Amino acid sequence: MRLAELSERSGIPIATIKYYLREGLLPPGERVTATQARYGEEHLRRLGLVRALIQVGRVPVATAREVLSAVDDTSVGLSKRLGTAVSSLPQVTQSEHDGAGRDAASAKADALLEELDWDLPKQDPAYASLLSSIATLDRLGYPCDVAQLLPYGLLANQLAVSDIDLISEFEAPTTRLEAAVALTVLYEPVLLSLRRLAHIVEVKRRSLESDQD
Amino acid sequence: MRLAELSERSGIPIATIKYYLREGLLPPGERVTATQARYGEEHLRRLGLVRALIQVGRVPVATAREVLSAVDDTSVGLSKRLGTAVSSLPQVTQSEHDGAGRDAASAKADALLEELDWDLPKQDPAYASLLSSIATLDRLGYPCDVAQLLPYGLLANQLAVSDIDLISEFEAPTTRLEAAVALTVLYEPVLLSLRRLAHIVEVKRRSLESDQD
Repeated sequence: MRLAELSERSGIPIATIKYYLREGLLPPGERVTATQARYGEEHLRRLGLVRALIQVGRVPVATAREVLSAVDDTSVGLSKRLGTAVSSLPQVTQSEHDGAGRDAASAKADALLEELDWDLPKQDPAYASLLSSIATLDRLGYPCDVAQLLPYGLLANQLAVSDIDLISEFEAPTTRLEAAVALTVLYEPVLLSLRRLAHIVEVKRRSLESDQD
Repeated sequence: MRLAELSERSGIPIATIKYYLREGLLPPGERVTATQARYGEEHLRRLGLVRALIQVGRVPVATAREVLSAVDDTSVGLSKRLGTAVSSLPQVTQSEHDGAGRDAASAKADALLEELDWDLPKQDPAYASLLSSIATLDRLGYPCDVAQLLPYGLLANQLAVSDIDLISEFEAPTTRLEAAVALTVLYEPVLLSLRRLAHIVEVKRRSLESDQD
């Protein structure tokens, strides 16, 4: 398809697509004349992922490029490509934490991972984000021991099973990786809004039961 | 305690505390001389919440003031105070969605809420955020039918039970509301980082099983 059709089908303005092409977020089309190029379904799919990253995930352009180059790196195995792509995504928290708080947080996180039987590379940015969240909860004096963290870990476990099932439905390796990255980003707000809605439902349920209010 | 001690115990610089006082995020201390005021444990606790909102939740100052005034509004019942406070928190997604996409997303969201047996006010911002996420997933061609959304909803349900149990341990109404708001914000990054870590664990487990990689 031509650029105009790619724009129409993706709902993304031509100027924005040209910007993504210049920034290397979208591979160039197949050149047909000096001024025209043809684009395929893979461009349409890639545009969807770029949009998920930039508009929903608010990922900076340089980071998006890093994520996409990991997706496209066929020199390494699939799970390595996936790991690099997902760990290049920005984390929700990146607040600093001091030494003392960090040690206590590490001890809690390790106890949690052991309880969950998760064998993980400690250098993963999601692990650093978990530590930082625990350190903040501690510093502010809110409960966050293994007892409070475990329900979250167990639910994350269950979610991961259905998430990976969903991703496994995509056949081609690159399509599967694109889906994994997009679904990681796109289901995060789904999860957070459902948690907030569930709070409302649960508070209402209890206040009807106790009629304290 | 004096301002210097409040700063030391909270780990927040004096200048920042003065800024919070000026912005009305922290109630004034009890004046003892023309230039000195005394602060109590409630100031320390409130500073923790302000910090959770602004530093972790990246809530703008005006929004934080709105959340806190809902927490402090003793003219209405507890669950109303909670509802207003939490729904004043910023949502993760606020991207716009067009008419057609919105209708399809509403139908899916309604089917999900019915399946979950959740009776909810449709004007809640978390509901708008859910709609917007579903519309985005749809537009980008990623799966998000009730089949995919339901596991998220069921897990959110379970989380809400343990979250509200945790909050119920705080006795005084205002302390409980402060905890509810703080824990809503502070556990969001915990949940997202655990989900990402669980993905790594699950992918590794499956690749060991299938040895495809």
